[in-house]
Amino acid sequence: MRHAYFDDFKVGQRFKTAGKTLTEADVIGFAERYDPQYFHLDVEAAKDGPFGGLIASGLHTLVTGYRMLFQAGYVAPDASLGSPGIDELRWVKPVRPGDTLHMRGEVIELKPSSSKPDRGVARFFLEVVNQRNEVVMTLRPMWLLKKRPASA
Amino acid sequence: MRHAYFDDFKVGQRFKTAGKTLTEADVIGFAERYDPQYFHLDVEAAKDGPFGGLIASGLHTLVTGYRMLFQAGYVAPDASLGSPGIDELRWVKPVRPGDTLHMRGEVIELKPSSSKPDRGVARFFLEVVNQRNEVVMTLRPMWLLKKRPASA
Repeated sequence: MRHAYFDDFKVGQRFKTAGKTLTEADVIGFAERYDPQYFHLDVEAAKDGPFGGLIASGLHTLVTGYRMLFQAGYVAPDASLGSPGIDELRWVKPVRPGDTLHMRGEVIELKPSSSKPDRGVARFFLEVVNQRNEVVMTLRPMWLLKKRPASA
Repeated sequence: MRHAYFDDFKVGQRFKTAGKTLTEADVIGFAERYDPQYFHLDVEAAKDGPFGGLIASGLHTLVTGYRMLFQAGYVAPDASLGSPGIDELRWVKPVRPGDTLHMRGEVIELKPSSSKPDRGVARFFLEVVNQRNEVVMTLRPMWLLKKRPASA
């Protein structure tokens, strides 16, 4: 699957991205900007915190998942019309510095637009997994996509 | 509301954070790292894109919303036990470079833990609004919070 349009996807289609290792510097750098809780920022204080050590912000896991998805290039750049939203985002297990994450997913629904015949909404079930194949995050995003143009 | 624990919150309680202006450099810098779609990256190409100009990544709006929330300091740092997840995240309107965002919200549910008497899950309805008071994003996050310790 590469540079797909709405009508190139099939319900049940599965995919898995390349990985990304989150370093301690990545984890702390993201937390400084967006999620400055001590268990994302402070190695020493985090030892006595609820996770027994430093963990990545769940938002960091989320954006890293999307980055892996975009790098995989499944969707044609001119097919994307943005996303209406995400349902049931769940942080299931902590992500720790040094963990290597992948995103895997499945197409769960393809709904052509009733008002605009050139597009549709694709729904996915996505999981971010670590190097032990443990699921750390799940989500059900939507993506508004153009159908393949006659010229493409 | 400042440095609250689980039992300091009340259902129906409302709050509004300070704001943050997203510059063009912010928008493009975030997109480069996490969401490299042309309508988040390329001012010229975006003019002919689905939004008629550059817009911020929805993920950027999300993490900016959380940043404003943490900066507001509503929750006591040692009260936070992380978040189980987010429901019904919706991107309602485009965010453009130069827009100034605020987060406003309401406590919608407070559910004490049945197994651990020192904590509970708070649910919120949050909206990110722009300088014209237009809602650009909504979400229903959960937050696992400790009750106020006897010593606090």
